Amino acid sequence: MISGALGEFGRIRRFFAPLAGPGGLGLTDDAALVDCPPGHRLVMTVDTMVEGVHYLPDDPPDLVARKLLRVNLSDLAAMGARPLHYLLTSALPKSVGDDWVERFAAGLAQDQRIYGVALLGGDSVATPGPAALTLTAIGEVECGGEIRRGGARPGDRVWVSGTIGDAFLGLKVLRGHHPDLTDSDRIALIARFRLPEPRTALGPRLAGIAHAMLDVSDGLVADLGHICDASGVAAKVRLTALPLSAAAKRLAAAQPDLAVQLATGGDDYELLFAAPPEASAAIRRLSTELALPISEIGTIEAGEGVRLVDAAGQPIPVENAGWRHF
Amino acid sequence: MISGALGEFGRIRRFFAPLAGPGGLGLTDDAALVDCPPGHRLVMTVDTMVEGVHYLPDDPPDLVARKLLRVNLSDLAAMGARPLHYLLTSALPKSVGDDWVERFAAGLAQDQRIYGVALLGGDSVATPGPAALTLTAIGEVECGGEIRRGGARPGDRVWVSGTIGDAFLGLKVLRGHHPDLTDSDRIALIARFRLPEPRTALGPRLAGIAHAMLDVSDGLVADLGHICDASGVAAKVRLTALPLSAAAKRLAAAQPDLAVQLATGGDDYELLFAAPPEASAAIRRLSTELALPISEIGTIEAGEGVRLVDAAGQPIPVENAGWRHF
Repeated sequence: MISGALGEFGRIRRFFAPLAGPGGLGLTDDAALVDCPPGHRLVMTVDTMVEGVHYLPDDPPDLVARKLLRVNLSDLAAMGARPLHYLLTSALPKSVGDDWVERFAAGLAQDQRIYGVALLGGDSVATPGPAALTLTAIGEVECGGEIRRGGARPGDRVWVSGTIGDAFLGLKVLRGHHPDLTDSDRIALIARFRLPEPRTALGPRLAGIAHAMLDVSDGLVADLGHICDASGVAAKVRLTALPLSAAAKRLAAAQPDLAVQLATGGDDYELLFAAPPEASAAIRRLSTELALPISEIGTIEAGEGVRLVDAAGQPIPVENAGWRHF
Repeated sequence: MISGALGEFGRIRRFFAPLAGPGGLGLTDDAALVDCPPGHRLVMTVDTMVEGVHYLPDDPPDLVARKLLRVNLSDLAAMGARPLHYLLTSALPKSVGDDWVERFAAGLAQDQRIYGVALLGGDSVATPGPAALTLTAIGEVECGGEIRRGGARPGDRVWVSGTIGDAFLGLKVLRGHHPDLTDSDRIALIARFRLPEPRTALGPRLAGIAHAMLDVSDGLVADLGHICDASGVAAKVRLTALPLSAAAKRLAAAQPDLAVQLATGGDDYELLFAAPPEASAAIRRLSTELALPISEIGTIEAGEGVRLVDAAGQPIPVENAGWRHF
C-alpha cells in the first residue's frame, strides 16, 4: 500500500487520470490501447531514474518528472520518431507524500502540453528503498523512416544539434565548481542538466537525410563510438568545431583542457548524426527553419574508433570517453 | 555503473541480446520498432516488482523473472490480447551479481518459448536500494476485439477460469502456515504463488463472448467490484461455486471460514468475466477445448457492489475485500 492520505487508487484518480489520453481508457482497465496508422510503425523506449542516482531527494518533483519524460522523448527523436504516448511506473517509499506526487504530476502535465503526448497507463508500488521511476515512451515513424545507428558510411559528415557540454557543467556547478560564474550562466547550465530539451522537432525531419543517428547521453565521443561500432566505420571530430554555449565558451577560454571534458561529458540529449555531404544544404535549411543550431563537427572514415583532433589536425588524447553517474 | 565483472554493457550483450526479437534491433539502438498489422490495435501494460515487497532476495531469480513477465501477460489476456513483445528495465544494487542476472535471463528465455514473446529493449541502472524490476508488455487485438471492464450488464453470468485462492494459500505456506499439508499440496500451492499461469490462450478467444473482463490480482471479490464499478452494475457470487484446487478443498473442509479468505485473497491471475446467458454453451466448449476449467460463479444484477451468498442464498459478510502486499 502506498503511503499518503490518498493511497494508491486516490493518487491515480486525482493526479494521473487527468493526464490520460484516449488510449489510456481513464486508467481504469488492465492495459492501454494503441492505434498505429497504416504505413507507420511504432517506436518504443524505456528509461528508469532512481532517487540518489539520477536525481536528488530535494530536486523539484516537477523537474524530475519532466527530465524522465524528456530523456525518453529524446530516444524517440533519435530514431526519427514523433512522440505520442507514455506509460509510467513508480516505486515510492513512504517518505514520498501526496504533495510530492502532485507536483510530479504537474510537471508531466506541463510537458504533455509542450510535446503533445498523453499518459496511457502505469503501475504504482511501494518500496522500502529509494524511489524508482520508469517511463516507457511510444512514438511513430513512417515505415522506412526510422533512423538507426548502423548506417554511417565513409565520406559522411558528422553533425550535432544544439550545444555540447552544458549538462556536464551544470552538474559541476550544482556540486560547487566554477563559483566565479555569473548567476545567469549558472542558471542556464543547471537548467540544461535538470531539464534536457529533446529535439523532437528535428528528429523526424532527418528521415531520408541522416544515415545514422542517436542522442548524446553517454558523452559525444562515446556515443559517436556507438555509431562507428554499429556502422563498421571510424570518425574524426575537430574539437574546435564543437558547438559550445556562451557560458561554456567563457569557461573553456580560461581552462584549455575543458573542451575535451565537454566532448566526453554526458546528458546532452542532443542529436548526433551522420549524413552524406550532399545533404549539407538541406541540414542548414532545417537549422534555420527550426531556429536550432546544427553544427558539422567531423567526418566518417574507413576504419574503427573515434579520433579527436585539434585545429592543426593533430590527435588529442581522450582519457575517459563515456561518463557515468558513478 | 552496474556491479559485477561484466558491467552494464557486458550483461546486455551476454544475457539479454540473445532474448531480443527482430523489433529489438539487437538492443543496440535507442528504441525498438513495433509493427501493427492492419485491422489490429496494440495493447500495452506495465508492472513493477520490488525486492522485499513482491519477491524475496533469496527467491530463485528465474522464477522472479517469469512471474514479472507472466503478471503482465495476464493483463494482456484480460484485455483479450495476444502477447507479442516486452521491454524490461532493472534497477539493481551492487549485491546482485552476474550470476543472479544470468539466472534471471534464463527464466525469461524459458517463458519466451512458452508464450511466444520476445524482448524489444530496456534499460539497466544501479540503485543503492532494493532491486526494482519493471516490465512493459505489448500485445495485439483485432480492432473491436478488446475486452474492457465496463461492459457487464444485468442478467450476465459471472465466470472465472482455473481455481481461486491457491496463490493466497501458497504465500501462507511459505510463511509457515498449514504445516499439516502433504508435500505435494505444499509444492502445488507455492508454485501457484510463485509462478502464475496467465490465461493467454483463453483471453483472445473471449472476444465477442465476454462483455467485461479483468484478471484477478487484488482478490476475486475486489476485482469483481472493479467490473461492477466500471459497468454501473452489481454482482452476486455463490461462495459454494468458487472453483477450488484439491489442496484448497482439503483445507477448506477443515476450516469453514477459509472459503471467504480465498475469495478475497489475491495474485490468482485467473480471468474473471461477465458474459450473457446465451454464451454459456460456447464458454463450456472453450473450457473443454483448452482443457481449462471455466466456472460460472454468479450473476450480474442492477445496483452496485458485490454480494457473496451461501448455499441457501444468504449473504456472507466480507470484512476485507482486496488484499495488499502490506
